[in-house]
Amino acid sequence: MVKKTENALHLLSPVGFLAAGVRAGIKSKPKNDVGLLVAAGGRAVSAAAVFTTNPVHAAPVVLGLRHIRRGKLRGVVLNSGNANACTGKQGLADALEMCGLAAEVAGGKATEYLPCSTGIIGHLLPMAKVRDGIVRCGAGLGSTREHAEEFTRAILTTDTRPKAAAVEIAMGKLGRVRIAGVCKGAGMIGPRLSLKGPVVPLHATMLAFLTTDAEVEPGLLGEMLEGASATSFNAMLIDDHMSTNDTAVLLASGASGVKVAGGGAVRKLFEAGLAEVCRSLAYQIAADGEGATKVFVVTVEGAKTDADAMKMARAIAASALVKCAIHGNDPNWGRIVSGAGLAGIAFRPEKTSLVLQGTRVFAGGVPAKFDAGKLSGAMDAAEVTALLRVGAGKGRATVYTCDFSKEYVTINADYHT
Amino acid sequence: MVKKTENALHLLSPVGFLAAGVRAGIKSKPKNDVGLLVAAGGRAVSAAAVFTTNPVHAAPVVLGLRHIRRGKLRGVVLNSGNANACTGKQGLADALEMCGLAAEVAGGKATEYLPCSTGIIGHLLPMAKVRDGIVRCGAGLGSTREHAEEFTRAILTTDTRPKAAAVEIAMGKLGRVRIAGVCKGAGMIGPRLSLKGPVVPLHATMLAFLTTDAEVEPGLLGEMLEGASATSFNAMLIDDHMSTNDTAVLLASGASGVKVAGGGAVRKLFEAGLAEVCRSLAYQIAADGEGATKVFVVTVEGAKTDADAMKMARAIAASALVKCAIHGNDPNWGRIVSGAGLAGIAFRPEKTSLVLQGTRVFAGGVPAKFDAGKLSGAMDAAEVTALLRVGAGKGRATVYTCDFSKEYVTINADYHT
Repeated sequence: MVKKTENALHLLSPVGFLAAGVRAGIKSKPKNDVGLLVAAGGRAVSAAAVFTTNPVHAAPVVLGLRHIRRGKLRGVVLNSGNANACTGKQGLADALEMCGLAAEVAGGKATEYLPCSTGIIGHLLPMAKVRDGIVRCGAGLGSTREHAEEFTRAILTTDTRPKAAAVEIAMGKLGRVRIAGVCKGAGMIGPRLSLKGPVVPLHATMLAFLTTDAEVEPGLLGEMLEGASATSFNAMLIDDHMSTNDTAVLLASGASGVKVAGGGAVRKLFEAGLAEVCRSLAYQIAADGEGATKVFVVTVEGAKTDADAMKMARAIAASALVKCAIHGNDPNWGRIVSGAGLAGIAFRPEKTSLVLQGTRVFAGGVPAKFDAGKLSGAMDAAEVTALLRVGAGKGRATVYTCDFSKEYVTINADYHT
Repeated sequence: MVKKTENALHLLSPVGFLAAGVRAGIKSKPKNDVGLLVAAGGRAVSAAAVFTTNPVHAAPVVLGLRHIRRGKLRGVVLNSGNANACTGKQGLADALEMCGLAAEVAGGKATEYLPCSTGIIGHLLPMAKVRDGIVRCGAGLGSTREHAEEFTRAILTTDTRPKAAAVEIAMGKLGRVRIAGVCKGAGMIGPRLSLKGPVVPLHATMLAFLTTDAEVEPGLLGEMLEGASATSFNAMLIDDHMSTNDTAVLLASGASGVKVAGGGAVRKLFEAGLAEVCRSLAYQIAADGEGATKVFVVTVEGAKTDADAMKMARAIAASALVKCAIHGNDPNWGRIVSGAGLAGIAFRPEKTSLVLQGTRVFAGGVPAKFDAGKLSGAMDAAEVTALLRVGAGKGRATVYTCDFSKEYVTINADYHT
C-alpha cells in the first residue's frame, strides 16, 4: 500500500511547501549553512515537534518548545556551524531574532517559526551572517527538487552526504498523500526525543524536517510523530552522546485534501508511511556515522517488555568494545552478550541465544560451534546484524548503529580547532 | 598517619601470605597466566569480596559468590587468557576443579578458595594447562617481592604494566598494619562492584587482590571493602563495558595482632589506608587503559546528592566525544557540559560552571573568555582535570578515566582473531 518512489520524490513533493538554503559563511568551508522551510500560501499549518530530553539544551530548543505549543507553524528557520548552546540570554535573543527575520521574509509572526541550530557549543551566533542568510533564503524560496536539495545541504555538519526519504500513499478513493523528510547527524548521536522536550537545556546534532500534504490535527500529528520516532530516531545511536539540539519537526499542509483522523485504516496507512520515512532517515544517519564503514542492526527478542528489549539493544549498540569488534569483522560475540547485561535487566544466559550475521554462535548458555573465519568473512559487509533472544517474554526492539573506527577518533580529536 | 612507602612495600608485605605465578601456556604469548595467593600457616582467614553486577557473569563469579559466603578463605586461584564465561555447566565444573587443585597443593577444601578468570569469553578452559600451572604454583609458593611480582604478572591481559599499591599504617601503641593490593584491567572496564554480586551472570576484566595483616571480622571487612570500592574501582571506567568477571577480594591474615573493629580511630585509619590503596589501583588502571595516553579526572560538585554527582561524572567520563576531545588536547568544553546531561538528572546551566585543567571555561550559563591555545597546551599532560559545579546541593563525586585514541580501536578491532 505504501508506494516508495524515493528517486522521484523529495522534501517538497508533499504539496504546499517552499524551501531554500544558502551559504552565509558561518561554516569556514564553502557549504550551505542557513536554511528556510515554509508553508506555501502565507498561512500557518498544523505542526508537531519532538525535542532532545537532555537536561542541557540549546537556545533554539527553548524557543522551539514555546513556539510549537499552539500546534501551528509557518515554518522552520535554521543554521548549521554553530549550535547556539550555552549562550545564555544573548543566545535566546539571537534565536528569536532568527524567527523574526523569517517572519519578515516569509510572513507571519516570529512565534510562528521554529528555530534550529547545529554545530559547536559555546559560541554566540555570527548574527550579521545569519541575517544575510535568512534574507537571501526569503528571496530564493521555491518548491523544486533543487530547492529541497539546497535546504538539505544547509543542515549538514560532519555528515558526508545528505539524507532524504519520501513515500506516496494511495488512500483509495480519498486520493494520495505524500510524506517526506530530510535529516542530518553523524556525531553526538544518541537521541531520546519527546514531545515534552528537555527535563532541563547544550552541542548540536540530530535534526529532521518532515513534510506531508495530509490534513492532520496537531495533537494527532504529535502522537504519530512520537510513535514513529520511537522505532527510528530514538532507536538509533552513533556515540550515544545525546545532543542538546536534537529536534524532529513535522509540518502538515493539508493540501492533498486527505484528512487523517480517528483510528481507522487511513490513520494506519499514514502511520506506516511516516514510520517508514523516519526509519529510513535514522538508518541513513547510522550509515553516515562519523568514521562508520558499516551499519550494525541489533535486535533483542524475548525480553519481558518492548522497553526492556530496547534498553538491552541500546546497551549492546552503545558499547565501544562491540562496535570495534564489528569494525574488525571479529565474531567476538561474548562482547555482545555481556553488553546486553549493561542494561541492568536480569536475564538467564542458559535461555539465551545469539545469531550473528545469520550464524548461531551462542545457545543455551554455551558456545555454538561455528566457522570463525567464514563468519568473519560474512561480517565484511555494508550491514551486520545481531539477534539476541533472551527467552523471558515477548518484548522486542531493533536498534540501528554503526561500527567504531579510528576515523571517529580523528574526526573528534580535532573538531574544535 | 598513613605512611605510603610504595617502593618498599608489595602484595606480600602484609604478614601471613604466600603467592606464586607461572606460565602455563594458556596465553599464546610467553607470559604468566596461572597464579595462586594463599594465607600462610595452613588455615582459612577472614575474607570479603565484591563482584560484578552485570546480569551476565562468568563461572568463577558464580562459584566465588558461594565460596565467600562463610567469610573465610584459604586463598585465591586464578588464570588469565580465558574468562571461563558463557561456558555452561562445564565451565562451573572447571572453576570448581581449579579450587580443588588449589586445595590439593595448598591445603583445605575446594570451597575455601575463590577462583578468578580473565580473558576471552565463550571458550572452555584448557584444563590440562591449568592443572599443570596450579601444581607448579603450589610447589613455588613464597613470600618475597619476586613471588608477589610473578603472581601479579599472572593476572594481566592487555595491561601494558603491573599495577600495585601498598600502605603501612601506624596504630600508635597497637602496632603497625599493612594493606597491599595488585590489580589488572585495561579494557572492558566499567565496574559496578557489590557484595551481592550479579543480578543474573560473561568476558573478563577488572580483578583486584588485596591483602592485610590486620585482624578484621568478615562482616566489617566486607563493609569496608564495599566502602573503599565506591570511591575507587566503582568510580573508574575505561570503555564503561562492565565485565562479567570483575572481582575484588580482600584477605585479612590477622598476623599483625592489630584488631580493627567498632567505629573508633583504628577503624578510621584502616579505612583511610584501604581507600588509598584501592584509589591508587583504580587510578593505575585508568592510566593503563587500552590506548590511553593520559588520565582524565572528572569531578562533579554541587549536585543534590553524592549519587547524583557520581551519575553525572560517570556520564561525562563515559562519553566517547569527551574522551576524543581530551585525547586531542581540545578544550571543546560543550561536550563535557552536555555529557553531564546524559545522566538524566536535572540541573540548571545558569547556575553551572566548568573549570577545565584549571581554567574557567563556562560560568553562569555563558562561555567564559579564555585563551584556547594556552588551555590546549596545558591539556597536553599526563593528567587532565575537569571540575563541574552545578549549584544544586552538596553532592560530590570524582571519577577516573582516560582519553580515547586510535590505539583503542586497533586493540579491540583485532583482539579475537
